[in-house]
Amino acid sequence: MNVSIVGGSGYIGGELLRILLQHPEVEVERVTSERFHGDPVKRLHPNLRGLTDLKFSSVSDLKDVDVLFLCLPHGESMNRIKEFNAEKIIDLSADFRLKSKGNYMKWYNVEHANEELLSKFVYGLPELHREEIKKSKFVAVPGCNATCTILGLYPLKELLKGNIITEAKCGSSEGGNKVNEGSHHPERSRVVRSYKPSNHRHQAEILQELGADVNLSVTSIELVRGILATSHVFLEEDLDEKEVWKIYREAYLNEPFMKIIKERKGIYRCPEPKLLQGTNFCDVGFERDKHSNRLVVISAIDNLMKGGAGQAVQCMNLMECFKENLGLEFPGLHPV
Amino acid sequence: MNVSIVGGSGYIGGELLRILLQHPEVEVERVTSERFHGDPVKRLHPNLRGLTDLKFSSVSDLKDVDVLFLCLPHGESMNRIKEFNAEKIIDLSADFRLKSKGNYMKWYNVEHANEELLSKFVYGLPELHREEIKKSKFVAVPGCNATCTILGLYPLKELLKGNIITEAKCGSSEGGNKVNEGSHHPERSRVVRSYKPSNHRHQAEILQELGADVNLSVTSIELVRGILATSHVFLEEDLDEKEVWKIYREAYLNEPFMKIIKERKGIYRCPEPKLLQGTNFCDVGFERDKHSNRLVVISAIDNLMKGGAGQAVQCMNLMECFKENLGLEFPGLHPV
Amino acid sequence: MNVSIVGGSGYIGGELLRILLQHPEVEVERVTSERFHGDPVKRLHPNLRGLTDLKFSSVSDLKDVDVLFLCLPHGESMNRIKEFNAEKIIDLSADFRLKSKGNYMKWYNVEHANEELLSKFVYGLPELHREEIKKSKFVAVPGCNATCTILGLYPLKELLKGNIITEAKCGSSEGGNKVNEGSHHPERSRVVRSYKPSNHRHQAEILQELGADVNLSVTSIELVRGILATSHVFLEEDLDEKEVWKIYREAYLNEPFMKIIKERKGIYRCPEPKLLQGTNFCDVGFERDKHSNRLVVISAIDNLMKGGAGQAVQCMNLMECFKENLGLEFPGLHPV
Amino acid sequence: MNVSIVGGSGYIGGELLRILLQHPEVEVERVTSERFHGDPVKRLHPNLRGLTDLKFSSVSDLKDVDVLFLCLPHGESMNRIKEFNAEKIIDLSADFRLKSKGNYMKWYNVEHANEELLSKFVYGLPELHREEIKKSKFVAVPGCNATCTILGLYPLKELLKGNIITEAKCGSSEGGNKVNEGSHHPERSRVVRSYKPSNHRHQAEILQELGADVNLSVTSIELVRGILATSHVFLEEDLDEKEVWKIYREAYLNEPFMKIIKERKGIYRCPEPKLLQGTNFCDVGFERDKHSNRLVVISAIDNLMKGGAGQAVQCMNLMECFKENLGLEFPGLHPV
Repeated sequence: MNVSIVGGSGYIGGELLRILLQHPEVEVERVTSERFHGDPVKRLHPNLRGLTDLKFSSVSDLKDVDVLFLCLPHGESMNRIKEFNAEKIIDLSADFRLKSKGNYMKWYNVEHANEELLSKFVYGLPELHREEIKKSKFVAVPGCNATCTILGLYPLKELLKGNIITEAKCGSSEGGNKVNEGSHHPERSRVVRSYKPSNHRHQAEILQELGADVNLSVTSIELVRGILATSHVFLEEDLDEKEVWKIYREAYLNEPFMKIIKERKGIYRCPEPKLLQGTNFCDVGFERDKHSNRLVVISAIDNLMKGGAGQAVQCMNLMECFKENLGLEFPGLHPV
Repeated sequence: MNVSIVGGSGYIGGELLRILLQHPEVEVERVTSERFHGDPVKRLHPNLRGLTDLKFSSVSDLKDVDVLFLCLPHGESMNRIKEFNAEKIIDLSADFRLKSKGNYMKWYNVEHANEELLSKFVYGLPELHREEIKKSKFVAVPGCNATCTILGLYPLKELLKGNIITEAKCGSSEGGNKVNEGSHHPERSRVVRSYKPSNHRHQAEILQELGADVNLSVTSIELVRGILATSHVFLEEDLDEKEVWKIYREAYLNEPFMKIIKERKGIYRCPEPKLLQGTNFCDVGFERDKHSNRLVVISAIDNLMKGGAGQAVQCMNLMECFKENLGLEFPGLHPV
Repeated sequence: MNVSIVGGSGYIGGELLRILLQHPEVEVERVTSERFHGDPVKRLHPNLRGLTDLKFSSVSDLKDVDVLFLCLPHGESMNRIKEFNAEKIIDLSADFRLKSKGNYMKWYNVEHANEELLSKFVYGLPELHREEIKKSKFVAVPGCNATCTILGLYPLKELLKGNIITEAKCGSSEGGNKVNEGSHHPERSRVVRSYKPSNHRHQAEILQELGADVNLSVTSIELVRGILATSHVFLEEDLDEKEVWKIYREAYLNEPFMKIIKERKGIYRCPEPKLLQGTNFCDVGFERDKHSNRLVVISAIDNLMKGGAGQAVQCMNLMECFKENLGLEFPGLHPV
Repeated sequence: MNVSIVGGSGYIGGELLRILLQHPEVEVERVTSERFHGDPVKRLHPNLRGLTDLKFSSVSDLKDVDVLFLCLPHGESMNRIKEFNAEKIIDLSADFRLKSKGNYMKWYNVEHANEELLSKFVYGLPELHREEIKKSKFVAVPGCNATCTILGLYPLKELLKGNIITEAKCGSSEGGNKVNEGSHHPERSRVVRSYKPSNHRHQAEILQELGADVNLSVTSIELVRGILATSHVFLEEDLDEKEVWKIYREAYLNEPFMKIIKERKGIYRCPEPKLLQGTNFCDVGFERDKHSNRLVVISAIDNLMKGGAGQAVQCMNLMECFKENLGLEFPGLHPV
């Protein structure tokens, strides 16, 4: 099958390309970038040297493909969506993730340009919407912090009462490859920076999918790839760790990309994003606070993979009836 | 005046030495370490090369001094406290921080060896107990995560209802200079490790000092020095940011080591521990969540300074009627 | 075909396991570790969770296999080599890399325990000894710094006159997974540490393979995986960059794991080890100094892959007539 | 005495300000920045919060001062030098470091705008030119890599025959506070990047001051502050380590900022830049290669201090007959 990538010069575009170039069922037709039109893709994605001699095309060179991946900046997809001809579209921006037009105004401060399409897109989180994704032609890939938070809390969905706090610790690749003052190495190095103490846009997705009062804070730390989300839930009934374990076990037993991490020995007793670099896994763990009725839930992903390109390919595999983890088998490195 | 340091081979001991060797009113008499007895202190504290030719003594060589600093491992101070002769004692372990014997059993799982002394020690947090410290002969220096959390929340003391979540992000120096599997560089590098999702011992101090239901979680990140504590408070009355500002301003206006950081421009709009390396400052900031009644409070310190050695010297300055910031004027480096 | 790994609890053992478990032609029989006998291998190699339920065996449990990989500490292989029954042996220690018994005394200060076997082992650097490796039953995998240096300089072999300086910048994984004072995170973090200004043992391999006066220095830097070797050669004839390019091009044109990196544009104009994490590539580049007759050669590898486990599998592929890069296709990540 | 800083928004300007604001003999009059005119200096130098309420002025607001520090970009000082009225000028750019006009063409590719002034400036390296600096009104502060290399090799000056290689490992602050693609955190993080394999401009200063064939290469590594220069010298006579030690001891015995670091025990046996962050020290060490006549010399500084602002203040202290280390006593932090 043929695919193309629109807006392929960014980090998510590069990861998509890395996966798709090695995917046994896929032929990459075009990768577009107006800014780098004509340049070899390996100049921006130097890990692909030796793997491809593709050059960036213009959107105007696009041909019909089976699946088109859109990696445009937020706000562009919603305006340009009707330009694109493809059997199926997988959009990696925020533009079709929210079901309610009002939430675009509330969280993004924009009037949605094509609100009638919102209902056609499936929220591309296979662990929640697998069957819909299989049948869909339009998928909106979730935000990285949203993916990590939702997958951590989803098995508890029925138990989420009152205010929940989620604090996500994030790396610098989440900001994309555009340079800014805050990303300048001497300034960004070793920060523990309260990037979004509140009002992070991904919270809108979390509220939509979990229907619970999750209050998100995002802190930037010394890391390039990876998210660790720590969620604090106050339980109404007194579940012990075995009961919680059972809930998670049941929810994720057959999930190809979910691992429950809760070890008594060794160094890596909880989910740890550095082990997930380059993988599509989401690791989830938890601990019951013995001094209160708090349950601390810990979840980890690679923001460019399960939080972006990997999840997009997972959706594609579902839409095309391939094995769900095809092309996504990389287990991660240690040490790293 | 003369001082000695008992247990001076660790990181806190080294920082104490760095400050005290340059303190204009202090003569350092002895630094003890049974393990490194006879070795030059600069072998373990290589930043002190050129500043001192002191060697580690044994405890048996101690003479009477005006102030004795104890940097013994937790559990040793409480057993050996009566061995030491000194006009005044400043203890940097956890052994005399808690007022209640029962809390030692609850949080440290030990029977306190000298419970009758607990009431003689003042909790050495000058911003809360300045007058008591001035009059005291025995001071217990607070834990680093406790200091950072308490100073962040203290101005709100009357408003702390219901469950509060504090998530502290910490560096590797907090674990001291003893090697272990988790501190091995390839394993510790770039972790986002849920070190203590719950049940961190410093929570006992926080509960004691604030009298509020603070639930602490501690996460280890890529950092050597520094703590950023993010606290999530749900307000019963709807205070806006100006009102919150006023509360903090009033509480900390005359404090020599407290800075309120809340900027609209620039990169460093919130407290940032990397700016505080080597300093005794505690920076505090906050943000009101416009989607809920949450207030996010952010506080930062250097765990070896305001979280240890610096705070100990601040207490000494108060006890000896020196200027409170004498020897503690270092403003920090940028970039770093 | 069946393989086993002796001494599989270390970093090189873990990488071998990661590759071999996913290698389409290989069945992993046993992984031994006397220390962790009975423990799941994924406790020490947490990236393998979900990939294997193997447990560490004892050496006494070993059965005959087609290929046996030895990851024993230096000095053990030479003593125990005759214990092992296997069709073919690939040794990852230094014990059979040097051809001359005298060099073991000179560089390792040991009397070789089985000198008669030295001539049976082939030095496992396929770019220099491919045909011998194909025919051999015993391969000694080169040291990581040696691999990086030799591959950088090999095309110039005929031009290497006088003293050559090679300075290798290395990560912390090179020291293995045993904890020591220097590997403690607060001490190891961000060092620029002259680990071996001279007298590094890998120099013996370089001298043996290149027959030129290469003077190696090794500096430890903030990095977990990766080596960048910078070699300084003074040319007797005045070659310009195009002529040098031709020499490298000719030498490495058909090599599956060698890439010549010399770009005019972009950020990654020279070899960069971070792009090679997890890959078996060696990237090589160079620059002619216009102020002297110096040629600066730059080479980069992942020390655990091309500098260890990856190279071992590359040798195995050759010995077994598989495609040389089978199981070694991972192209690396960006950004990381 | 009064001083002003022209071009004070950069990293070197910020360090100057940090030192001068705490210098007991100095009053800071003005800090100029055309770009940030009117902004508080602490916005760009957030470590100075609480220390100063100064705002950036324009050059047109400058008044006569005793010492004027110029922190202009290279190429600007030489053009604008005559605009400035001050008793004494300390220039931190490269514009007056070289004695020969021809070298500006050769290394900087510019025609010098005020060549008649070149002879009036003293090269501000006190360890080589102390007496001249004391008598001078114009000082050109050396480049950071030049300082580190020259101070490492200077004691050997008479022994420097043939080609010498110096490889400097550098941090990201050396590039200043202007953002660029290569300084973007995800790209700059953990690089081992051959920034200038040859043709680094600081080589011109090294050649001028040492009169020997030093061939410089500069590699960027994961570090914000600090330089480690490793120099490789081939000795004509066979000096042993004691003899080399004597040479260094003699050269630097009375130098307030030079330390010879050569330890047999402990972790920090060689110079290590991370221990020097924020200090004005230059640490120097060496090792004799027992396999050849090579001497490896290792030198370390903080590029913003001894490699910039600290050295400038050291020169000012000499010019004003203050104690040479006044305001420069900070001993550095450990661990960090």
